[in-house]
Amino acid sequence: MVLYIIGLGMGTEDDITLRGLNAVKSCVRVYLEAYTSILCVGKEKLEALYGKEVTLASREMVESESDTILDGAKEGNVAMLVVGDPVCATTHTDMMIRARELDIPVEIIHNASVMGAAGSCGLHLYNFGATVSIPYFTEGWRPYSFWEKTAYNRKGGMHTLALLDIKTKEPDFEALARGKKVYLPPRFMSVNVALEQMLEAAEAKGDEEGNYGKDTMCVGMARLGQRDQCIKVGSMEELLKEDFGEPLHCLVVCADDVHELELEAMKHYIVEGSRYA
Amino acid sequence: MVLYIIGLGMGTEDDITLRGLNAVKSCVRVYLEAYTSILCVGKEKLEALYGKEVTLASREMVESESDTILDGAKEGNVAMLVVGDPVCATTHTDMMIRARELDIPVEIIHNASVMGAAGSCGLHLYNFGATVSIPYFTEGWRPYSFWEKTAYNRKGGMHTLALLDIKTKEPDFEALARGKKVYLPPRFMSVNVALEQMLEAAEAKGDEEGNYGKDTMCVGMARLGQRDQCIKVGSMEELLKEDFGEPLHCLVVCADDVHELELEAMKHYIVEGSRYA
Repeated sequence: MVLYIIGLGMGTEDDITLRGLNAVKSCVRVYLEAYTSILCVGKEKLEALYGKEVTLASREMVESESDTILDGAKEGNVAMLVVGDPVCATTHTDMMIRARELDIPVEIIHNASVMGAAGSCGLHLYNFGATVSIPYFTEGWRPYSFWEKTAYNRKGGMHTLALLDIKTKEPDFEALARGKKVYLPPRFMSVNVALEQMLEAAEAKGDEEGNYGKDTMCVGMARLGQRDQCIKVGSMEELLKEDFGEPLHCLVVCADDVHELELEAMKHYIVEGSRYA
Repeated sequence: MVLYIIGLGMGTEDDITLRGLNAVKSCVRVYLEAYTSILCVGKEKLEALYGKEVTLASREMVESESDTILDGAKEGNVAMLVVGDPVCATTHTDMMIRARELDIPVEIIHNASVMGAAGSCGLHLYNFGATVSIPYFTEGWRPYSFWEKTAYNRKGGMHTLALLDIKTKEPDFEALARGKKVYLPPRFMSVNVALEQMLEAAEAKGDEEGNYGKDTMCVGMARLGQRDQCIKVGSMEELLKEDFGEPLHCLVVCADDVHELELEAMKHYIVEGSRYA
């Protein structure tokens, strides 16, 4: 029949589209992919709305066991629910390719994602360059590739959206050593940690004309698209001290040249006492 | 009360979210902004679904007569419906600022937009640079600024999304000369016209290392997010001859370096006999 890959948007269960909801209702099995982002409601809320069971799909299941998910999709519709929009993450490509190999039609049902909602702060989306990812640094692994990408964007007058690391299934190595398979509690990088790491990279790389520094205008955003979303504008140094609350967070490093209309729309979000106030 | 600015997504009336629909139902007045994009259903379909009247809002109304729209918004909720996502176009900023001045709370309800759905072709969204616009050339006005932006994106290894011109309310100057205010039928730029203009710009600008030419891989897309969407991959020269059907169209100029996983996902859309087949 059909493999539906359905975006849930960024907030609660009622952010699904009518088309998405109708598709879910037609399915014999419904999976929820929840390791590349997080939904701010439990799957019980989804089940109550859909009137059917929802199975959590792990990364292994989505990436390597597509056949388990696709099993029986020739006889009845199957849905894979995705937080945000299905084509904004890249994790479903394998499943789509596999479905095509099995001659199962795939239908994508779009929804809002951070790539679009990032425009909520007032910056114009068409001025954004490549998106960067900020991974959690470890003692021995401190990759600075986001620094080069941000530099290139800024030199071209573009803003840079930074997506922040999520760790949802880290093994607890201490427990593992005692023979127990235990996972650490999930971690979601805050704007503050991202800024610390970005400033560390800037220091390590040395001054480069045009790249960001502690005085660069940034936008910290949390829970975008949710009713209690938080948007704050200020310099890197200023935002380091701000509290953004619960996850998910993301960050925009502005181009040096922010358009007058962008500034006008952002004014509302500038933190008190900012150099940009 | 509340000014809701509600994204309708990219397809039919059932692409609204449940949250959006509930908001519309709470409103005393509902406007539809329909000059920066087009909805593929008539407003009657929306009215039937919502159970209330929908007023078409012209560009003048949205950009200069916010107060007409906001009138009474202190007593009852007002909705402005927008094709795609409210923050992906920049035309609603004025209204949001005006609402804040009048102390009217604004709530944005997100939805899918072309900025996210462009990933449907298999290219990774985080590899996209700044978005360009291709305006209809006239005899005396042939702006090539998209050429420079595309060049910069490509040198940095980024893809470029090109949004194509829409003319929905062009005065008919011949009729105007006879004293009649008549508008020309709406025009929507096709992938083919966009490619012609882009190749003209490339010729006028002369060869620049790294910028696009007739052999550059592109993706032409039409009616993204709709059930009959059309996606075709090929060189500029190859896509010039392809028919993409009804509007809206958009175009992606790929970076020279397309990732292996992107290629794998795009294979499906390559036109017959392409140099990329």
